[in-house]
Formats: sequence, structure tokens, C-alpha cells
Amino acid sequence: MINAFITTKTVRFEHCDPAGLIFYPRYFQLSHQVIEDWFKDGLGHSHADLVVNQRIGIPTVHVEASFLAASRLEEILEYTLQVEKLGNSSVKLNIEAHHNNELRCQIKQVIVFSQLDPQDVKSMPIPDEIRTQMQNFLRIE
Amino acid sequence: MINAFITTKTVRFEHCDPAGLIFYPRYFQLSHQVIEDWFKDGLGHSHADLVVNQRIGIPTVHVEASFLAASRLEEILEYTLQVEKLGNSSVKLNIEAHHNNELRCQIKQVIVFSQLDPQDVKSMPIPDEIRTQMQNFLRIE
Amino acid sequence: MINAFITTKTVRFEHCDPAGLIFYPRYFQLSHQVIEDWFKDGLGHSHADLVVNQRIGIPTVHVEASFLAASRLEEILEYTLQVEKLGNSSVKLNIEAHHNNELRCQIKQVIVFSQLDPQDVKSMPIPDEIRTQMQNFLRIE
Amino acid sequence: MINAFITTKTVRFEHCDPAGLIFYPRYFQLSHQVIEDWFKDGLGHSHADLVVNQRIGIPTVHVEASFLAASRLEEILEYTLQVEKLGNSSVKLNIEAHHNNELRCQIKQVIVFSQLDPQDVKSMPIPDEIRTQMQNFLRIE
Repeated sequence: MINAFITTKTVRFEHCDPAGLIFYPRYFQLSHQVIEDWFKDGLGHSHADLVVNQRIGIPTVHVEASFLAASRLEEILEYTLQVEKLGNSSVKLNIEAHHNNELRCQIKQVIVFSQLDPQDVKSMPIPDEIRTQMQNFLRIE
Repeated sequence: MINAFITTKTVRFEHCDPAGLIFYPRYFQLSHQVIEDWFKDGLGHSHADLVVNQRIGIPTVHVEASFLAASRLEEILEYTLQVEKLGNSSVKLNIEAHHNNELRCQIKQVIVFSQLDPQDVKSMPIPDEIRTQMQNFLRIE
Repeated sequence: MINAFITTKTVRFEHCDPAGLIFYPRYFQLSHQVIEDWFKDGLGHSHADLVVNQRIGIPTVHVEASFLAASRLEEILEYTLQVEKLGNSSVKLNIEAHHNNELRCQIKQVIVFSQLDPQDVKSMPIPDEIRTQMQNFLRIE
Repeated sequence: MINAFITTKTVRFEHCDPAGLIFYPRYFQLSHQVIEDWFKDGLGHSHADLVVNQRIGIPTVHVEASFLAASRLEEILEYTLQVEKLGNSSVKLNIEAHHNNELRCQIKQVIVFSQLDPQDVKSMPIPDEIRTQMQNFLRIE
């Protein structure tokens, strides 16, 4: 059974390098956009409200990515996002980008809910309301 | 024994997010700058000459990164780059960023020497001259 | 009479700075996305096809921009693009971004159709088919 | 008489587009780095301290730029920054980038000292200490 958040992103001129291919740090910008979309449309809780009003951030502490085939200007990437593991403060995500059924990029990423004090970044439990919503995207194998 | 390429990078306004911290995709931009510096100053072979004149690229096929402590605006990051494994076409790098002896970010990254044909990206053996220079940066444990 | 290409863009986390506002170079990335959308959806000619297959670029030679009010994370910007002047090789664009009827940013930008030779960038006449389409977006006052 | 702040920036892989040229929004990232260097090394007042500790920002409200010749991967750009006009809250800067005596890019940019309240951005007088230092970089013709 697959229980994923799905969206698409277009490879833009700004993402491409002199080789004409997407420059790999841009994949992480795109996958963060997918996470932002997931918060808003999948979890029903805007990421901007968390960061700006509640001063709660979701810094990435670990990421592992495979880039399996090159992506090119104006291609549309089909993204799926799933929750692999739901911890107390941390969430392990699996994010994949396909184009025409070809897997282009797979990212496993751990984000940690954190209080954004000016001088410090402290982990905190995932707010209950958000945790409940996240369970709908747990990967079941 | 440590045999590393060493350089520094400054955390710029453009790297920082609304939380006031470096946004993690920017770490990969900075580590690519470290790789560019390494080619030019460590290996004696400009990355621009490879890409533009010889149409040889070094796309990243795998990356694993841990972000251990937050980096902030205008901090100077001390980078070390070492070769962990030297394959036929691929090179596994270990790139670390410290600030005041605190490890901020560790990246293990596999790049693959590739011919940049307009329609295809094909792996190719590492040019001999570059391979010889790379051996000077092999991590010996 | 207004004859404009219209689209929307979302202010993303990657666009915002430590002040929580959009960092102004990102406005130019967004307006370039608007130009890309215009080529594809407004002019019926993919920008990627121009650049990659025909080696025709549209470098910007002049830009003048006013940033009239701050834009914030997750706001949706409503873009309008119009042609102010259609030259032999050059096109002067007027691009505006509004949010809730407030003008956030106005950009006047001159792009020049150019042949992308490896060692040189030479201006060239706007291809006829594209020029014809562009006339539909001429600003009439 | 010329009274300018001078520094250099390298064109990086991340700045270049599929045409192999610097993508023009990156020029504005580079010129902001020049402004950051000017605050620290020219005015003796860190931009980070302003933004993070004093919550004073310097948003750009107007910019006019000419891109006169293409810049390419790994070229070193020689930057000069001068103050054209010193207002009560605003500063008009003239920033130029040369390579081998060829003018690549000229930017006229107005920044405004502003208090960064969470909900608002209000202009404020330039702090006296900074104003005094800025006078050393006034363009005298």
C-alpha cells in the first residue's frame, strides 16, 4: 500500500548548470518546496505560520540522496513524499522524483522540530495536531 | 596521518533562511565551491577548463550529509576535503566544515567523471593526470 | 487596454532572508520563471528548446527594478508581463508582481536574442515566429 | 578623485547557466556580498550584527543594472563600490564589476536602513557611526 503526498515541480533555468543539467543542490531546494507543499496541503498547517509566528523550525539534520539520472531544463518532475519514521521530535522522510517513470532522485531526509531561539536551536516534540496528520503519510510496507 | 585540502568559506546573507541559519541546500553549494578550489589549487587543473573546453563534467551521484550544529551569518567555515575512495570513474570525497573546532557539517559525496554529450551523460575513466594528483589527498587511516 | 501574460508564483523558504523577507535577487529568479512560462504558454515556443537545441539565448542586458513593499514567506505573487518595446534583437519587458492589489515589485528588463557560440555571444534578429507572437503582448496605452 | 571600496569575487559553477554564462540574478547575489564585505572591512560594522542583534536591515528599494559583457566560469571579477548619494535613511551605491579592464556589470542600487519589526519594515535614520564611515566612500567627481 502506498500512502504518499504527491506534487510536481518544473526544472527551471535557475536550476541548471553549464552542463545543461540540474545542479544537485537545486534538488534539495525543490524537495524543500515539496515539504512546504506537504505542510500546507497535506498536513493542513502552513510552514510559514510555524516559522514566522510560532518560531518553530524544521532544520534538516541528516540527508542521503542518490541522483540516478540527469534532469534537464523544463522537465516536469513528479514528486512523492512519505514518512518513513515518526520519532518524538524527528521525522524521517522519503522523497522521490520521477520523470516518465524514470527515478531521477531519491532523498532520505531527517528533519527535527526545533524552537528557534535567537541564540540556540533546541529540539521539541512534534506538535500533536501535526503528528496526527503525519501518520496519514506513513510508509507501510 | 591526515592529507587534506583545506580552505575557508564565509556564511553569506544569501545562504541564510528566515530562521537566521544557513539553509542546508546552501551547504552543498559551498562544498561544490570547495571542490572547485580543490581542482584549481589542489589538483592543478581548472574545473572550468574540464567543463567548458573538454566537455567533461563531474556530476554527483550520491551524497550523504550530517548537519550537526547550526551555522550563522558571517561565520567563517573551515573546510577540509579528502579522497576516501578512488575508483575508475568515480571519486568518493569526505568534506567537513568546522567553526571554532565544532564540526558543523560532514558530507560524503561521490562524483563521477562523465562526458557531457548534448543528449547523454556517460561515465569515463578519470584522466591520468588528475588521478595522479588526487592520490595526494587520499585519506590514510 | 491591457494585454498581458498573467501567472502566479509563491514566495518559498529558499527566497527569504534572515529578515523574513524575500531577498531581492530572488525576485529576478522569479521574474525569469515568468519569462520561461511566457515563452511556453504565451508564445508557444519553449525556452528550453531555444537554449538547448537551437543554442539561442536571451541574456538580460539592462534591468531596472523598484521594490515597493516587502513580500513574505508563502505569499502568492500575481505576475503580469507585457512587452513595452519590440526591437530588432531586443525586447523590453514590463513585469509587475502584486499581492492583494498591492504592487510589490516592478521590473523593466531588456533581453536580447543571441547566438550562443562557445567563445562569443552575438545578437541576432528575433525569429519571425516568436516576434509575431510577442506582438500579442505589446502594451498599448 | 576616486574613493572606492575594492574587492574581488570569483564566478562559480553555481552562478552559471546552461549557456555557460553567469545568470544575471547571481550578479545581485555577488554585489550583495560586496556590500557585506564593505560593511565589515570598509565601514568597520558587521552587517550580521546589524541584522541579527540590532534587527536593522538594509533592504534594496531600487536597482538599475547594465550587463555589458558576459562573464564566464572561474573568471575573477574586480569590484568597486562607491556611495553616490547619502540620504537620511537611504544610500545610493554605484557598484561595478570589471574583468581585465572590461566593464562587465554596473549596478546603481538604493538601500534603505530599516527597522525589522515582525509585521512591518520601517525606514530609520542611518546610525551616526555608520554615516560617518560611509562619507569616506562618497564618489567625488
